[in-house]
Amino acid sequence: MQEVNVGIVGLGNVGSGTISILAESADQIALKLGFRLKVAVVCSRSVAAKSLPDGLDGVLRTTDWRDVVAHPKVDVVAELVGGTGVAREIIDGAIAHGKSVVTANKELMALCGSEIWDRAIQAGINLAMEASVAGGIPIHAVLREGISGDRVIALKGILNGTSNFILTEMEKHGEPMEAVLAEAQRLGYAEADPSADVDGYDARSKLAILSALAFGERITPTDIYVEGIRRISPLDFRYAHQLGHTIRLVCSADQTHDGLILSVRPALIGQSTILAGVQGAYNAVWVKGFYGQDTFYYGRGAGPSPTGVAVVSDLMRVAREIRSGSPERVSPFAHERLGEYKPVSVRSQRRPYYMRFRVNDRPGITAALAGILAAKHIGLEAVLQQPCDTKHDLPFVITTETTSENAMCEAVEEMSRLDFLNQPPLVLPMEPPL
Amino acid sequence: MQEVNVGIVGLGNVGSGTISILAESADQIALKLGFRLKVAVVCSRSVAAKSLPDGLDGVLRTTDWRDVVAHPKVDVVAELVGGTGVAREIIDGAIAHGKSVVTANKELMALCGSEIWDRAIQAGINLAMEASVAGGIPIHAVLREGISGDRVIALKGILNGTSNFILTEMEKHGEPMEAVLAEAQRLGYAEADPSADVDGYDARSKLAILSALAFGERITPTDIYVEGIRRISPLDFRYAHQLGHTIRLVCSADQTHDGLILSVRPALIGQSTILAGVQGAYNAVWVKGFYGQDTFYYGRGAGPSPTGVAVVSDLMRVAREIRSGSPERVSPFAHERLGEYKPVSVRSQRRPYYMRFRVNDRPGITAALAGILAAKHIGLEAVLQQPCDTKHDLPFVITTETTSENAMCEAVEEMSRLDFLNQPPLVLPMEPPL
Repeated sequence: MQEVNVGIVGLGNVGSGTISILAESADQIALKLGFRLKVAVVCSRSVAAKSLPDGLDGVLRTTDWRDVVAHPKVDVVAELVGGTGVAREIIDGAIAHGKSVVTANKELMALCGSEIWDRAIQAGINLAMEASVAGGIPIHAVLREGISGDRVIALKGILNGTSNFILTEMEKHGEPMEAVLAEAQRLGYAEADPSADVDGYDARSKLAILSALAFGERITPTDIYVEGIRRISPLDFRYAHQLGHTIRLVCSADQTHDGLILSVRPALIGQSTILAGVQGAYNAVWVKGFYGQDTFYYGRGAGPSPTGVAVVSDLMRVAREIRSGSPERVSPFAHERLGEYKPVSVRSQRRPYYMRFRVNDRPGITAALAGILAAKHIGLEAVLQQPCDTKHDLPFVITTETTSENAMCEAVEEMSRLDFLNQPPLVLPMEPPL
Repeated sequence: MQEVNVGIVGLGNVGSGTISILAESADQIALKLGFRLKVAVVCSRSVAAKSLPDGLDGVLRTTDWRDVVAHPKVDVVAELVGGTGVAREIIDGAIAHGKSVVTANKELMALCGSEIWDRAIQAGINLAMEASVAGGIPIHAVLREGISGDRVIALKGILNGTSNFILTEMEKHGEPMEAVLAEAQRLGYAEADPSADVDGYDARSKLAILSALAFGERITPTDIYVEGIRRISPLDFRYAHQLGHTIRLVCSADQTHDGLILSVRPALIGQSTILAGVQGAYNAVWVKGFYGQDTFYYGRGAGPSPTGVAVVSDLMRVAREIRSGSPERVSPFAHERLGEYKPVSVRSQRRPYYMRFRVNDRPGITAALAGILAAKHIGLEAVLQQPCDTKHDLPFVITTETTSENAMCEAVEEMSRLDFLNQPPLVLPMEPPL
């Protein structure tokens, strides 16, 4: 029984999770595949200091990734370094040496996935990236194979565990953003610089990859409107609950008559929807197919073991392809492929909206705001005001009927001239039920 | 660009859904695959009376499945006839002619999957059966590829849409089983003979297939304890709600120290759990992996289009394999493969239990029942009695602490001798939260 040999580059969280599974489940994996999947080389800048799991003691260690991609025994390289610098060199190097590649790199695949995939196909090697989005959820296998016979018309996801943890904690305990973020940092759920998570950039990379897969379209992160969760306060949860909703950082791809509308932004979602049930650091993806209608996928978004499962599952699939001599067949980023899904501006999206104001109270405020909305032909649905002990910084909420994002932006622009507003209004779309 | 040719046997619900998608999405499918997937032959007993979708007008029609499996152009046969009779002949015939096979046949694959798979591997052809379980949910792709690097330790599912529709309607409207079943029959959700659905046999076949896939073990339907929903009444939902639970027909596979415990039975599940949110004719599968922990999958359980997506996705995968010359590699039913998961009796399962009695009321009843439980070392958790206007057929509920199914069975046996019971107690396990 001939084996397939793996080279691992990067022994951080994901790398450690991956080699633990490969070592502990070596026999199981061999029984599932019909041949052994062997770790031949591991590479890390601090490889001397790393203790490898039992069963990997004889493995070649190196601090230079070139030793991995050039190693004659290595059939497939797992790039688990992350980032867009050396990771790109590693993948290009592996492809140049005719090695197949498994990557967990969302940033790089979101930015250069199309290019890398073209190169892989030209070289006749396999490329797999299950671990790049929603660690524990096998959403790539689902989109690539499971429902490949369907035509995806919409996709919504909760793809950043850190911001979901922050929002659900804020919802539960009524504490302000800053306090919850500090707690998340203390627990290791959030980075010292939390921007990638709370400003939506991490989720945006993931949505770029998922929508490329789902719509067969070339999507780059800059095609996606992004807005983070920093302006959400416990107060907004109280208003949202009053409206039967909650607030989540929603990644959304919507096929409309105008084109594909892509956004990552905090939004109101119905409290009884299945997406609202996604708590803490979990991730979820909801897919609407033209034929199969709703399907929903849920699991851990990150962590060494769930992400390790994704990498190992990819290694197993690629190893099978290598053994049966079949290269990757069609790029998921083939933008010439389906072609009907051109990204368009979020400004053409139509939704009901939630607007939260903070005002220096005086008579005539509602009339002024309602007047601006009316001038833009935006119907007013409700005006809500929860008890408050100050007149100088009084919060209240207006919800609108379904209107275009464009009209809302124009209305907000007009409102910026009103001297009673202490800050620009917070505007959140209210997502229709799944 | 060379095409791959498909023969379709069976033009019922699933067959019609399948050929509609193949016809309408022909160009999309070709773009996704890089080659065309062409319907070459269709077979149905009433094929002359069937109107085929546009684009399939030139297709060969036959009433004899032998014409399909023997047709020199056909590369892959879709068996969409169902049942265990002629369907088996069709699949065997296709394999004998070296054709790959896609099937939606849960009954046959649950009963003879292992044998059929062995034959397919010997013949070097591909076999796929995504549509056999939970139509719209790509759970086969998930287990076969998506999380193949994990080790599944438990699996729970709602796999029969009809019984889930009946239970959720009963819960919502408080109507008795018989009325809801009649309504489901009127709507076409339930068959004239509803036994396969309401007695759990349909779900049992599906669980047999899923657990074979998940645990790499040969599971036959008779390894699975089965109990239907006929004894559930609206009253049970009222008690369940009082306990913070609801009732669903739960398919469960649990890896324990004793072995693999498999059951299909109505059970109490926490009202706030994600599984309890599965309403109406939807299906869901929850998987617990040793490494990846919880993942959850949800979608339509049946219907021509969702099941058609599963068949078409399988056809696309198999067509790719045919084009790249790679046969199916390892049987999902390889019972010699992982080997650690032997099915054992449900009697060794440990759960808290819900017992609902109907008694001819008199003093001493609780004492008598509690005495029997105590003698079996079963701890009593709560005694609940909702208002009732008759003493002659008084319902009430006892819940127990965690105990073995075996002890419960012995207690129920003892209770059968008590003359104040109007019927044997209804005993439902209370499932721990996912």
